[in-house]
Amino acid sequence: MMTVSSGDTPVSDIDFGTDPFDDDKLHEECAVFGILGTDDAAKHTALGLHALQHRGQEATGIVCYDGTDFHAHRELGHVGDVFDKDRGIVEKLVGHAAIGHNRYSTTGAPMVRNIQPLFADFEFGGLAVAHNGNLTNALHLRKELVKHGSIFQSTTDTETLIHLMAHAKGSLTDRLIAALRRVEGAYSLVCLSRKKLIGVRDPRGVRPLVLGKLADPAKGTSAYILSSETCGLDIIGAEKIRDVKPGEMIVIDDTGLHSEFPFEKQEERFCIFEYIYFSRPDSIVEGHSVYDARKAIGRELARENPVPADVVVPIPDSGVPSAIGYAEESGIPFQYGIIRNHYVGRTFIEPTDEIRHLGVKLKHNANRAVIEGKRVVLVDDSIVRGTTSRKIVEMIRAAGATEVHMCISSPPTTHSCFYGVDTPERSQLMAARMSLEEMRAAIGCDTLTFISMDGLYRAMGLPGRDSAKPAYCDACFSGDYPITLTDVAESDGNGAAKLSLLREQKVG
Amino acid sequence: MMTVSSGDTPVSDIDFGTDPFDDDKLHEECAVFGILGTDDAAKHTALGLHALQHRGQEATGIVCYDGTDFHAHRELGHVGDVFDKDRGIVEKLVGHAAIGHNRYSTTGAPMVRNIQPLFADFEFGGLAVAHNGNLTNALHLRKELVKHGSIFQSTTDTETLIHLMAHAKGSLTDRLIAALRRVEGAYSLVCLSRKKLIGVRDPRGVRPLVLGKLADPAKGTSAYILSSETCGLDIIGAEKIRDVKPGEMIVIDDTGLHSEFPFEKQEERFCIFEYIYFSRPDSIVEGHSVYDARKAIGRELARENPVPADVVVPIPDSGVPSAIGYAEESGIPFQYGIIRNHYVGRTFIEPTDEIRHLGVKLKHNANRAVIEGKRVVLVDDSIVRGTTSRKIVEMIRAAGATEVHMCISSPPTTHSCFYGVDTPERSQLMAARMSLEEMRAAIGCDTLTFISMDGLYRAMGLPGRDSAKPAYCDACFSGDYPITLTDVAESDGNGAAKLSLLREQKVG
Amino acid sequence: MMTVSSGDTPVSDIDFGTDPFDDDKLHEECAVFGILGTDDAAKHTALGLHALQHRGQEATGIVCYDGTDFHAHRELGHVGDVFDKDRGIVEKLVGHAAIGHNRYSTTGAPMVRNIQPLFADFEFGGLAVAHNGNLTNALHLRKELVKHGSIFQSTTDTETLIHLMAHAKGSLTDRLIAALRRVEGAYSLVCLSRKKLIGVRDPRGVRPLVLGKLADPAKGTSAYILSSETCGLDIIGAEKIRDVKPGEMIVIDDTGLHSEFPFEKQEERFCIFEYIYFSRPDSIVEGHSVYDARKAIGRELARENPVPADVVVPIPDSGVPSAIGYAEESGIPFQYGIIRNHYVGRTFIEPTDEIRHLGVKLKHNANRAVIEGKRVVLVDDSIVRGTTSRKIVEMIRAAGATEVHMCISSPPTTHSCFYGVDTPERSQLMAARMSLEEMRAAIGCDTLTFISMDGLYRAMGLPGRDSAKPAYCDACFSGDYPITLTDVAESDGNGAAKLSLLREQKVG
Amino acid sequence: MMTVSSGDTPVSDIDFGTDPFDDDKLHEECAVFGILGTDDAAKHTALGLHALQHRGQEATGIVCYDGTDFHAHRELGHVGDVFDKDRGIVEKLVGHAAIGHNRYSTTGAPMVRNIQPLFADFEFGGLAVAHNGNLTNALHLRKELVKHGSIFQSTTDTETLIHLMAHAKGSLTDRLIAALRRVEGAYSLVCLSRKKLIGVRDPRGVRPLVLGKLADPAKGTSAYILSSETCGLDIIGAEKIRDVKPGEMIVIDDTGLHSEFPFEKQEERFCIFEYIYFSRPDSIVEGHSVYDARKAIGRELARENPVPADVVVPIPDSGVPSAIGYAEESGIPFQYGIIRNHYVGRTFIEPTDEIRHLGVKLKHNANRAVIEGKRVVLVDDSIVRGTTSRKIVEMIRAAGATEVHMCISSPPTTHSCFYGVDTPERSQLMAARMSLEEMRAAIGCDTLTFISMDGLYRAMGLPGRDSAKPAYCDACFSGDYPITLTDVAESDGNGAAKLSLLREQKVG
Repeated sequence: MMTVSSGDTPVSDIDFGTDPFDDDKLHEECAVFGILGTDDAAKHTALGLHALQHRGQEATGIVCYDGTDFHAHRELGHVGDVFDKDRGIVEKLVGHAAIGHNRYSTTGAPMVRNIQPLFADFEFGGLAVAHNGNLTNALHLRKELVKHGSIFQSTTDTETLIHLMAHAKGSLTDRLIAALRRVEGAYSLVCLSRKKLIGVRDPRGVRPLVLGKLADPAKGTSAYILSSETCGLDIIGAEKIRDVKPGEMIVIDDTGLHSEFPFEKQEERFCIFEYIYFSRPDSIVEGHSVYDARKAIGRELARENPVPADVVVPIPDSGVPSAIGYAEESGIPFQYGIIRNHYVGRTFIEPTDEIRHLGVKLKHNANRAVIEGKRVVLVDDSIVRGTTSRKIVEMIRAAGATEVHMCISSPPTTHSCFYGVDTPERSQLMAARMSLEEMRAAIGCDTLTFISMDGLYRAMGLPGRDSAKPAYCDACFSGDYPITLTDVAESDGNGAAKLSLLREQKVG
Repeated sequence: MMTVSSGDTPVSDIDFGTDPFDDDKLHEECAVFGILGTDDAAKHTALGLHALQHRGQEATGIVCYDGTDFHAHRELGHVGDVFDKDRGIVEKLVGHAAIGHNRYSTTGAPMVRNIQPLFADFEFGGLAVAHNGNLTNALHLRKELVKHGSIFQSTTDTETLIHLMAHAKGSLTDRLIAALRRVEGAYSLVCLSRKKLIGVRDPRGVRPLVLGKLADPAKGTSAYILSSETCGLDIIGAEKIRDVKPGEMIVIDDTGLHSEFPFEKQEERFCIFEYIYFSRPDSIVEGHSVYDARKAIGRELARENPVPADVVVPIPDSGVPSAIGYAEESGIPFQYGIIRNHYVGRTFIEPTDEIRHLGVKLKHNANRAVIEGKRVVLVDDSIVRGTTSRKIVEMIRAAGATEVHMCISSPPTTHSCFYGVDTPERSQLMAARMSLEEMRAAIGCDTLTFISMDGLYRAMGLPGRDSAKPAYCDACFSGDYPITLTDVAESDGNGAAKLSLLREQKVG
Repeated sequence: MMTVSSGDTPVSDIDFGTDPFDDDKLHEECAVFGILGTDDAAKHTALGLHALQHRGQEATGIVCYDGTDFHAHRELGHVGDVFDKDRGIVEKLVGHAAIGHNRYSTTGAPMVRNIQPLFADFEFGGLAVAHNGNLTNALHLRKELVKHGSIFQSTTDTETLIHLMAHAKGSLTDRLIAALRRVEGAYSLVCLSRKKLIGVRDPRGVRPLVLGKLADPAKGTSAYILSSETCGLDIIGAEKIRDVKPGEMIVIDDTGLHSEFPFEKQEERFCIFEYIYFSRPDSIVEGHSVYDARKAIGRELARENPVPADVVVPIPDSGVPSAIGYAEESGIPFQYGIIRNHYVGRTFIEPTDEIRHLGVKLKHNANRAVIEGKRVVLVDDSIVRGTTSRKIVEMIRAAGATEVHMCISSPPTTHSCFYGVDTPERSQLMAARMSLEEMRAAIGCDTLTFISMDGLYRAMGLPGRDSAKPAYCDACFSGDYPITLTDVAESDGNGAAKLSLLREQKVG
Repeated sequence: MMTVSSGDTPVSDIDFGTDPFDDDKLHEECAVFGILGTDDAAKHTALGLHALQHRGQEATGIVCYDGTDFHAHRELGHVGDVFDKDRGIVEKLVGHAAIGHNRYSTTGAPMVRNIQPLFADFEFGGLAVAHNGNLTNALHLRKELVKHGSIFQSTTDTETLIHLMAHAKGSLTDRLIAALRRVEGAYSLVCLSRKKLIGVRDPRGVRPLVLGKLADPAKGTSAYILSSETCGLDIIGAEKIRDVKPGEMIVIDDTGLHSEFPFEKQEERFCIFEYIYFSRPDSIVEGHSVYDARKAIGRELARENPVPADVVVPIPDSGVPSAIGYAEESGIPFQYGIIRNHYVGRTFIEPTDEIRHLGVKLKHNANRAVIEGKRVVLVDDSIVRGTTSRKIVEMIRAAGATEVHMCISSPPTTHSCFYGVDTPERSQLMAARMSLEEMRAAIGCDTLTFISMDGLYRAMGLPGRDSAKPAYCDACFSGDYPITLTDVAESDGNGAAKLSLLREQKVG
């Protein structure tokens, strides 16, 4: 991942209180949500963001417009805590239009100034922008903009877009199109001006964005909605209209909904990891049920790797649908062999040496009644650093399993993502530095199986991966990056470009 | 439930910020935990309480002893938040012995003074007490004690016990035994003095309490542990020795572990609802795996009620094991048809009228891919007021189910519990005021089935319920209360006795 | 001072965040306030306590009664912060009667449980008690009470009184009188029951208590008020009726105000330090204006000690009236030579070595324009440890003073107070361990003068001190203690008796 | 005052919790402080800002540089609270150079983004800027900058300066000079880059700025300091070198201190209100002791207005030095007739109707012993709206004064300040809408006297006001504005120009 750093110290050194017991997972960076045409637009947005919480848990923000003023609140924390009614914030975010954002930092330090939606006061008035994705030439453009007198306040790539718009000419949409034509990367954007709610997806369509509608039968009106996933529509009872299409710009205003395709057409490459892990299982993404996709992957995995075993156990919660698929296909019973504790606080208990070895149990406990004396198939979605996998295998063995077979519903994660996912550097990816057998030995399981690349595509309903023209972006497994990585190429090899950065102190 | 009230206003009128989106569930009132013989006894206790969080989420507290002083921290909130390391509290709770408590208020308002463990300074020194259960003659005894000059500081039944001890004679254990001989009710107690860690279960053994051991191979020492459930042992890697027996008092000190049975023997009546809902599925309670018990109940349910259907869907998380059992027995596929959002904050979003109808979706969403066009068996553990059940059925129908069959893995909940469980008054229990058909209609499902009483006992490995001598306390289903309800009998019919009460203001 | 300790560690070791830049002053322990007969009794009480803030800054509390329920809020912090309207606490303290308390801990650790008013549920109903003073046989009585089964929740001497009442017979006032007949010490008490507001002063009348009245012309009603000082009446526009008399018990209820003198008459011994430092200069205490008394002391000081000098400079704020008196008498001009910064937070800036030497300047700065090249008379009220005096002399010399003459408007403080004032142990009192010349040298001034004992009495309008029958309690100067010190006599010599104590952790 | 507003709603409508019991005073907008060449530069800065707290109490901020990174903390609140050591913030602000700022909002809403120092990442690296004063053509320039693509993040005039620098060419100092040549207004600036600490005063020298030095004898090094007033030097034991001169730019780096005068010379017009009220009495400002200046004004006042009276009473704290001067000149005794309570919290007690009339007494109480039966001269520094004066006169009469003569140590405040002082609009200035006699009647005093303009200049050591070339800026009394008011001229008459503004919600 490309990090924006200050001087020589990588920003990632700043500890900002991530859960020390967090899973060894890739993390989606962001969710976006927008709505125009209802009272309490900010409340609807808060609910939408709450349903999209899994896409970003570091910070959340809403900007709304009441016909006269823009109002905003942006803060580190979960949606349900930041917009807790006892704090009285949402109540002050009045207006009929709003956009919101959940963030899991990819570029930019965890500074309050980086929390989206960003807002700028243009000649034509105010504009708020929220972005899911990552621009791969943001630093390149930033240097050029700074040279011409632009003052950046954040370290986000999104601000680059705003400065490009400030230097463009014409109407809001003219400027937005001009700016987007200069950027490279993956993005699903929502923007809010005094008159318009706008949604755009990059020409490759790497990140998801859906369009929905919420009818108010009492008033005979209806509101349009943009949301990263359909679960953001479900929570407010809105109906899905369709996915926003790759390269499409949707403009919603008083006169209704307008669509255009202002960019040169390119081959679509939707992120396949959205199906494996990022999206919520109850979302329908690009026409596929995520739950069904995961079950299909579990079935493929069972077909590719028929292990004799007594019980199929998911690593909760993400491994559940694949494990059900695996169990259905293999006929081995599905059981809840690992119980997850949902009450973990952010920084519970200083892990002294004596406590430290307890590690993973804070979140998980083996269900001995299901495990003891059994040959266990463990189903997980992916292996990133491999640290958690090792602890879970240890826990399962301690609970009396006679054999542990680890089945992974993705191919080995060998490459970093530069399109909006928080990936460790390659040197930390287990699959980038070890052979399969080395991985198995390190994790301590009896067998270790990843689904094949073709198996994964088969689960998506295709005959296999067409390497000449793959249907999805699978760069994290294949290293085949569909969008130019300008900033990486210009950086000093370790992927970190330099920016002068103000380090804001956070308060306990 | 018997509530302690002030004047004419029932204490339950005080709103103390319960989750407005909470399940329609009975709530276990408390967890207890104690450990003697390790450094960082309070940290171990915090971890144990964290694993026992499901038994009480309103408040938590720890009292420890460092050889010279007792230290305490007691606060409203979850264990992981109260003892978050950034607050530096656990670090100050030094010592080799500690007891702790999670509380879900049954008696006593949510006042800080009511948070356990309680502590008193006796002639012989300090004593801390934590209690899971409910004393059914606490108010009766309290009136007598006040008449003799006792000053109560809390409204908990546990303080009655402490005053009884203060007026008894002899050693700590003499006084504890004398006091317990005067009380009626259900209790699993842990106590900590300067020298001893004590655990006691009432003669009926209504509430669980297990004894464990944590060896420190490096030092060649080992610590004894008392915990409400085995999951409190698992989290710190401790080994279960055995259940504390009904009527047993275990005293742990420098000289080791001592057991006695100071009370008249009575028939055991362990709470059967611990298997149905309260205990964690990975706990082994009174010799039974909770997970296995739930699966067995699910199987009995399928045998008693063979519905033709396409899919078995649990109401997460508590309905999962029964649903797996149901699916295994019936052959109908088990699917995750309802997705739970684990990020809900306590008081998220003021439910305006427009928002209110969204209701249950904050926590749950139907997984349309699994539901649409299907005949659905929904498996839940119990129905209390029925409000949530109705909303879930509505949600499942909205997702396209053609039939909805609700199967409940407990008999109808017709009576209040007075032994330590937070039950609404009978008038609010759906099954106490409606026929089965009325309930079905109110909930809106096609069929509604509860497991039979005999089926429930069969799932526990018995031939059925022996009504002359039932093996379990099942008063909430049968109205057969095994322990006298003195305070209820003396109260004014609505179950609320009168106490003068100081209403402490809480701060935002 | 007698401190209640736990085991061998004195409670005073517990650092509870006192202002590290605090003055070297004795501290009055408490203020009391009570009102009956107005709406918003708690708001009036909060205002009264705010005016009495100088008498106790550690914690504050209010208990009120609304005709049905008692309500309370008690918390560490200043009145204006604890009852800040944004927190919404006072708004919930409804009712027509209330008592309140400001606390500066004398006995009892800074635990929330120790914050007054204390409240107890007696057979006859609830009673709240707030206390200014100190009982000198509280521990002696406490041991006896514990032996008879009383459970203490706090470490305050006030709770001893409550347990004595619980074991007494008869009506509320019977019990209160019976309990007070058993205690020794200094006290001004206010109590609130469902029917009565009661005020009592000990027979010596060591601590002040005034009676006032607040008429509501609109309603034709009037409320009675009890307050430690008249400034507590002024702030709410109430009129002073008279001082409560030594040994008097005033009972206010629906039928009006009743006075009785239930104790054996004793010689009055009002605390003379109230005039020197504790009371607010705008209060009228026992018939004397505090401001006038201080000016008269300054005048005496100038008469006793006519120093040739250029400028009279008060150490703000307490030295101001004496300095004005000194200047008027001596004809030397009064100037503000030391400027005080009123913005100091509680724990501002960790004093690293480099910063530490800056010390006293956080609160004070020399006004060079007034000091430079001048012979300066510095007027302060007292010297306790002498640490601040040395720093101030240093600062004045650094600002260019040619001579520094320190004039103190009290005799040397040679003895501890046991009647409700927070005094260091004798070993820390500068005047108890040094000669006058040693003190002068240690402080670094050119001359050091204390007012004589007779001069002090002259300033109070008397011919001098009648050592056979002194008009005031002046034990801190004379060692002549008018009330028996039972607990001190029974303690182990260092003044600290032993109690088992629970140390509650506070949160940052 | 010119306020930056959003749409039609003036920003001043936003209630941000100002003290409801605040004095009726003009408020200085800001303090600046900078230091280069010591360890713990941020701690020194926090201390300096603490000493300068009187110049701005809304917010405070520090930016420091550690040789590699810039660190910052900026927050609403007092210095001693924001940088309270328990919060651990200052400890993280490491480095040898720092600048800081206290803010009392003049332009810009109380948004976190507006808290200074501002920081920007230029081509040449990072730069932090803190500003005391007000730019009178900031909006004019802002519109032009936005047109050319600048994106503003704050609503402060200071950001205009930063964008001007971004569009300028050359070195940091070249750009700063170029930018400053384009702005009009009053400013004392401090800037911090990776290499330099810079201080600049506007050519008129309206706002103060002093240069100091702090030697570290142990290391043989010394640090340079820039501070709004000398009290910021005193607190850290630093020595004053001299005032920064009007139009001077001082650059401090490794090679020492460099001075230049890059602007066209103009007549000096230091703000005379700094002597009357803004500056601390112990500061030496432009060669005059503020305390001496105030005493001299008091003397002039007594000469111009010899009232027969019994006592001279200051309105504390600002009226004290003038009252001493008045008393010395008139021979009438100086007495503390009003006692100030220093414990007022920000929003203490919701002022219900019943409570509201108590008003001013929360902060002040009349000292009856001094007032009763006396003819009182009350000395105050200024009258702005007149509301407080009326309440104080009422309070003094209620305490028994026979006559009340109000003497004001400034001429009538008839005009708004546009140079960095928070003044109400003219329509709210009592002296702008009433005759002297009307004012007297409204305030309710027997006589009301303001010092004459010539008297004020005489007190400053001049023969009187030279109306052709006044020595000071006295626009608030004379309407003679020495610096062009471009934005006012371009605004819509009510002084408020329009900006699109994001309204950030504040929490609790």
